Amino acid sequence: MKPSIPKGTRDFSSTEVARRNFIFNTIKHSFELFGFQPIETPTFENSETLMGKYGEEGDRLIFKILNSGDYLKKVDEELLSAKNSSKVTSKISEKALRYDLTVPFARYVVQHQNDITFPFKRYQIQPVWRADRPQKGRFREFYQCDADVVGSDSLWQEVEFVQLYDSVFSKLQLKGTTIKINNRKILSGIAEVIGAKDKLIDFTVALDKLDKIGKEGVVKEMLEKGISNTAIEKVQPLFDFSGSNNDKLDSLAAMLSTSEEGTKGVEELQFVVDSISALGLESASLELDVTLARGLNYYTGAIFEVAAPEGVKMGSIGGGGRYDDLTGIFGLKDVSGVGISFGLDRIYLVMEELGLFEAVELPKPKVLFLNFEENESLSKIKAIRELRENGIKAELYPDVAMSNKQEKKQFKYADKREIEFVVTSLEEDQMFNIKDRKTGEQKVLTINEIITFVK
Amino acid sequence: MKPSIPKGTRDFSSTEVARRNFIFNTIKHSFELFGFQPIETPTFENSETLMGKYGEEGDRLIFKILNSGDYLKKVDEELLSAKNSSKVTSKISEKALRYDLTVPFARYVVQHQNDITFPFKRYQIQPVWRADRPQKGRFREFYQCDADVVGSDSLWQEVEFVQLYDSVFSKLQLKGTTIKINNRKILSGIAEVIGAKDKLIDFTVALDKLDKIGKEGVVKEMLEKGISNTAIEKVQPLFDFSGSNNDKLDSLAAMLSTSEEGTKGVEELQFVVDSISALGLESASLELDVTLARGLNYYTGAIFEVAAPEGVKMGSIGGGGRYDDLTGIFGLKDVSGVGISFGLDRIYLVMEELGLFEAVELPKPKVLFLNFEENESLSKIKAIRELRENGIKAELYPDVAMSNKQEKKQFKYADKREIEFVVTSLEEDQMFNIKDRKTGEQKVLTINEIITFVK
Repeated sequence: MKPSIPKGTRDFSSTEVARRNFIFNTIKHSFELFGFQPIETPTFENSETLMGKYGEEGDRLIFKILNSGDYLKKVDEELLSAKNSSKVTSKISEKALRYDLTVPFARYVVQHQNDITFPFKRYQIQPVWRADRPQKGRFREFYQCDADVVGSDSLWQEVEFVQLYDSVFSKLQLKGTTIKINNRKILSGIAEVIGAKDKLIDFTVALDKLDKIGKEGVVKEMLEKGISNTAIEKVQPLFDFSGSNNDKLDSLAAMLSTSEEGTKGVEELQFVVDSISALGLESASLELDVTLARGLNYYTGAIFEVAAPEGVKMGSIGGGGRYDDLTGIFGLKDVSGVGISFGLDRIYLVMEELGLFEAVELPKPKVLFLNFEENESLSKIKAIRELRENGIKAELYPDVAMSNKQEKKQFKYADKREIEFVVTSLEEDQMFNIKDRKTGEQKVLTINEIITFVK
Repeated sequence: MKPSIPKGTRDFSSTEVARRNFIFNTIKHSFELFGFQPIETPTFENSETLMGKYGEEGDRLIFKILNSGDYLKKVDEELLSAKNSSKVTSKISEKALRYDLTVPFARYVVQHQNDITFPFKRYQIQPVWRADRPQKGRFREFYQCDADVVGSDSLWQEVEFVQLYDSVFSKLQLKGTTIKINNRKILSGIAEVIGAKDKLIDFTVALDKLDKIGKEGVVKEMLEKGISNTAIEKVQPLFDFSGSNNDKLDSLAAMLSTSEEGTKGVEELQFVVDSISALGLESASLELDVTLARGLNYYTGAIFEVAAPEGVKMGSIGGGGRYDDLTGIFGLKDVSGVGISFGLDRIYLVMEELGLFEAVELPKPKVLFLNFEENESLSKIKAIRELRENGIKAELYPDVAMSNKQEKKQFKYADKREIEFVVTSLEEDQMFNIKDRKTGEQKVLTINEIITFVK
């Protein structure tokens, strides 16, 4: 039987690891330049930390870990014979795999609140697990890359997050991304003005689908949810929103003038838009998108989402927003936070499609020393050590060739791994015969000359 | 209720993450210089991949993942009411957390054998999980850092692994480590010569304890295991083995002259010892240790173990060896391998004890712009952007101070995070008031002058 891995999981080859690390390292570098500090939390948390934090669907998709030892011993017999899986779970499992990085971060902040200096700017790049049905681009194990600030109300954070997105995507050479921005207070204001305040969630969920199901679909869904025709009439202009960010803000300011919350939202967005105009962006553009709601109920201020460059078919490659009570679930009130996330797997796919991985250095030796003569090995190993000390990746083909066939095998190895330089033999006086496999150029050089030659 | 994490797991603060990454990056850098390629495997594997590979104890210590959905539905009712936990496990769990990196690597090689170029030099740095009883220095979640070569019999690999250990520990400034080496064939030869071939495992397990329980304890254990007094007599010289590696090898060569396998082991060790003598080591020393067995049955040739510098009380900080049939368990025969591992957590503790983390750059801003005047913020954010573009970590304290108390809070923030430079205010003409907090020196500089000043 051929061995396999669980569905929804992946093995990563060295080329894939190198490319993924290129993305991770670029993100990390920008995170740290912007003053964020890394933390790491355990792969599994106590079940009570995670359960109930992601809704019923989330609870179902959390991977639970079976207790060790004789885990059935203390379970009520009737419960077992009733075969009520969901009730038995809490009796036989007390740990679960991390489902996202946000809840463990909230737990971390509360648990370590006395050791943390607020405002606390943290970043975290770790895998998470979800028992979702796997499909193209959706995995059961995948990385999240989050940066959050907690303990500050300042809108400069929102400005900095726009800059941070721009910085990372510019460094990745992923030019032409669109950073969409909205504000939850504007959504609330709209709902208030149209007199459907109690239906805010239905309203935003429907509005969020504008791109997918069009104006008619959204209207149909709103009607189904009990939002009146009159209310929908009032909101019609939002369906064809266009012009510059400032045009949109002017229009919103007028529409929401009677709503205190809506007006606040317009002011907040205006601040971010004005600041970014004054600062400029390198390769991204900022676009007010009033349909943006991200389906999440915990955002209370800014909402972000990043779209890939035009022409690339891909969902959002990043998102985030401000939330006012992240740590409340663990008993620490009044800690405002704002954060963003990078979607590693989608960024990878976009970069692959655009051919942006060519610059990534692959983990392979630059120089391969062929091994045709046993008695040359020690000299070669000495030379290799010098190359390595000069930062040049080099290796000796480990097994000495005993036949023509085995010699060919060594050349084939250099072919397959696309190794640039091959040292065939040792000439007298510590001179090596080296070949540039691309140009075909062949020279007899000392080890110091080799260092210059291959660099 | 104060939130907590499962026992045996850890949160890592940003200082800890930075220090751990310093070790990881040093190891990675050397791995790649030596021609090793990274791979990554999933956090959980199919249970049948892991179960039965680590003995009965290992099976017990593997963390199992509960199946999703109505996992009890198809379980036999009688089995449930009998509360036979171990039999029920395979019915309600089909995935398990990685227990080490070796078995997943073997699975990877077999599964991807057609895409791999042999000899395959891979490295892997990932966490593993064991449901062991947690104690000082032993965790339920910890990292392994492994490098292995499969598909080559060459003893140059053993030589390179000694160099690799030396390279990594030298770069970490962890000087004076001892790389202990033995060979399983020598152990077999000894058992053969003393006529206790069938008791090889008992013999090596007892001999391995020489450091811990002394000569008398070992003799007692050997007698208990049915090894004869005559046999133990023959092995007495091994208990007081001393002198240079060559002295020891001479003595072993004589002792094992009648054993083909033992003689082979001596020759193999002689090759490694001679090669390393010719090549030299930077800061480690190589020491033949005939008591070294590492309790593992799958080693077939060289056995390695690294001891921390003298004076530091710590178990081994690395180990490994050659195994002849790693992939056989998954159906791919005759693939010889050799590999070593670095013990991250112990290396961390040793470096901490020796004060070797002072050189590690912590993730904190170099320059903090205080935020006392709302109308200076935009100029400051512009200056910060220029600093970041020049690779200098900088940030604006996010919230503007509205009182003396809040101003003090900002200074306190700079204190707590030990930030070197503080910009207090903007003077006219884009000049900033900057203070070196260590020396107390205060200057009014342009942003370009600041870049030079803080670098």
